[in-house]
Amino acid sequence: MASEGRAPLITLLTDLGTADTYVGVMKAVMLGVCPEARIVDLCHGIEPQDIQQAAFLLDTAWRYCPEGTVHVIVVDPGVGSERRVLAVEAHNQQFVAPDNGVLTYVLARARDYRAFSVEREDYLLPEVSQTFHGRDILAPVAAHLARGLPTEVVGPELEGGLCVLPISRPVVSAAGLEAHVVHVDRFGNLVTDLPEADLYTWQQERGSQGFIVRVGDSAIEGISLTYAGVQPGELIALFGSTGQLEIAVSMGSAAECLGVGRGAIVLVEGEA
Amino acid sequence: MASEGRAPLITLLTDLGTADTYVGVMKAVMLGVCPEARIVDLCHGIEPQDIQQAAFLLDTAWRYCPEGTVHVIVVDPGVGSERRVLAVEAHNQQFVAPDNGVLTYVLARARDYRAFSVEREDYLLPEVSQTFHGRDILAPVAAHLARGLPTEVVGPELEGGLCVLPISRPVVSAAGLEAHVVHVDRFGNLVTDLPEADLYTWQQERGSQGFIVRVGDSAIEGISLTYAGVQPGELIALFGSTGQLEIAVSMGSAAECLGVGRGAIVLVEGEA
Amino acid sequence: MASEGRAPLITLLTDLGTADTYVGVMKAVMLGVCPEARIVDLCHGIEPQDIQQAAFLLDTAWRYCPEGTVHVIVVDPGVGSERRVLAVEAHNQQFVAPDNGVLTYVLARARDYRAFSVEREDYLLPEVSQTFHGRDILAPVAAHLARGLPTEVVGPELEGGLCVLPISRPVVSAAGLEAHVVHVDRFGNLVTDLPEADLYTWQQERGSQGFIVRVGDSAIEGISLTYAGVQPGELIALFGSTGQLEIAVSMGSAAECLGVGRGAIVLVEGEA
Repeated sequence: MASEGRAPLITLLTDLGTADTYVGVMKAVMLGVCPEARIVDLCHGIEPQDIQQAAFLLDTAWRYCPEGTVHVIVVDPGVGSERRVLAVEAHNQQFVAPDNGVLTYVLARARDYRAFSVEREDYLLPEVSQTFHGRDILAPVAAHLARGLPTEVVGPELEGGLCVLPISRPVVSAAGLEAHVVHVDRFGNLVTDLPEADLYTWQQERGSQGFIVRVGDSAIEGISLTYAGVQPGELIALFGSTGQLEIAVSMGSAAECLGVGRGAIVLVEGEA
Repeated sequence: MASEGRAPLITLLTDLGTADTYVGVMKAVMLGVCPEARIVDLCHGIEPQDIQQAAFLLDTAWRYCPEGTVHVIVVDPGVGSERRVLAVEAHNQQFVAPDNGVLTYVLARARDYRAFSVEREDYLLPEVSQTFHGRDILAPVAAHLARGLPTEVVGPELEGGLCVLPISRPVVSAAGLEAHVVHVDRFGNLVTDLPEADLYTWQQERGSQGFIVRVGDSAIEGISLTYAGVQPGELIALFGSTGQLEIAVSMGSAAECLGVGRGAIVLVEGEA
Repeated sequence: MASEGRAPLITLLTDLGTADTYVGVMKAVMLGVCPEARIVDLCHGIEPQDIQQAAFLLDTAWRYCPEGTVHVIVVDPGVGSERRVLAVEAHNQQFVAPDNGVLTYVLARARDYRAFSVEREDYLLPEVSQTFHGRDILAPVAAHLARGLPTEVVGPELEGGLCVLPISRPVVSAAGLEAHVVHVDRFGNLVTDLPEADLYTWQQERGSQGFIVRVGDSAIEGISLTYAGVQPGELIALFGSTGQLEIAVSMGSAAECLGVGRGAIVLVEGEA
């Protein structure tokens, strides 16, 4: 499945941080197996064991990756337990990850996919620890896939039963359309679970014209197109780079200004 | 303009941080267009929207990059507004950046340069958001340039009128030579705007022998050659890796010891 | 010594952080010399001037790197002083580092090695500063080695006399086996200097059955196999990815829970 005739791309998404050599060692292992691979760091700043955050961030990235990309996700509180390691074909890409829900959005958005349980030992490091499968299992298997190993060789195909997380979705209530903050980015922007299309569908159904967006005690009138063009410090609502509703503060941090974070409710009210 | 016969080099300098997938997605986009590119992170820790800091850090780096390097700078508070995206040829390299002053030093140091406004849509992502031109415009355009696309193809050439910031420069006063802290590095070293040559020119003109360097209430006698060779905790002045005067503390942080940061005045007095 | 017929691998381990362009500039210099090199970041978050931490982290990584890898270590408080820059052949790899002890574990574990003093100027940047040898000396020399330059060309071979640090080792006392925390990782796991084999040798000699592990006022019964399978918040002792005894807290930080860090004593008592 790896793309023909060009260097295969491997991405990494982990909670391993950058204060240790964990990530570097995974890369060294991968380049030992597949020296021509290009490795891209998606993020290593996932909060320790925060599977939900990893699942969300993976979903912001995979669609921008070329066909044949192999994604490796290491957020793995169950390492060494009975949880499986998956190799999944979906979206013309491959995903190597613990079976713990980090692939929730990838699977939910796939028309179809094939999942395999990584079990065959030929493609692992000779010594497999009980505490760092990222290095000993996921990295070498991903590198073998990047080299062109057919996915079905890594172990038995799974017929469903993959671990998935509940997906956060906006809720229509008497008060309006209730979205939820699912991510706070480095700028302090509050990213919600409300896609642009859903807002306009809801608007059409209600026949309302404008919007008021409420977060905590603050109310924002209308949806902006960009972060620019307003006064520094002004609170705005807009559709950000994920295509989902965001609350932002021009030249500042909405998370700080509003004192809210993940899980906070963002209520959209229609104006007649 | 890209170098012949070897993998093109692209550098990235952004305020996008490492807590999201913003940078990883830009790299995936670039490798999708130009799989053979080598990508080097210059820095992603620019304070959000701090164009001045980005301009300074870019200036510490470009001269060490091989001919044909393509630099991508994403510090872009005006994203989605009318501000242009530039593709600039200078120093036998290329710079893709918003027209907001991040290229101030690059342009100031160039004997000549050509600047183009990135407008032709063929080289952008099919869908261009209003909030992340780094991903949708700058990354793909830079990757096309790295592949050898002539710069003039991206859009019309600009005849001047580029946005530049005021450049911080030392001032000669009755008290002495007044430099300014323009950067605090990870070691807490205070980097000033005073180049080595300027100090010695000033010294020659004044006919003074030694120097006293004053920051806040502290006075430093003479200029050291290295960070080593003094007592831990000792305050020193030296010409650092930028070639500009730095205030440092041996095995410690000058910024912390002195309680000063960017913008602070460093006064050089000549000794008769 | 570089591996034939495939892209050479260079790793970087530094205290240069990610807030400046120091690391990016080193990479640009290396790719200018050796465009086909693959560069892997082992870690840039070493505490400023913390040679001991760098030596430990290097030891967690080099054995996972392919033959012919060139390692560059820049933790260099003595830059510009008389300290030498070394190019060492060991473990079928090469190490370019200041002669200040960062290679302590690499040398201690090598059956034999050859060390050279980097002195020949042909392989350095044309202008060598007194404050950033990482950029001006180590990066270009490492890139030349990665291209296949024989190590002996860089300067005279050294016959011993390399700087090494004292190596932390567990101590057998009346109370038990006294290990020491040598690293706190990003998860707050306390990594000690006690290798698995040493524990079992000691146990066999004493004829004890189980273990009690004491850290501060806390006692842990037995050695776990994995981080999983215990209650969140539970304190455990296990052999982590380094093969050395670790103290961890399930879904939490042992360093925070116990309020201890590097240098803390971890006492293993045998149970009859």
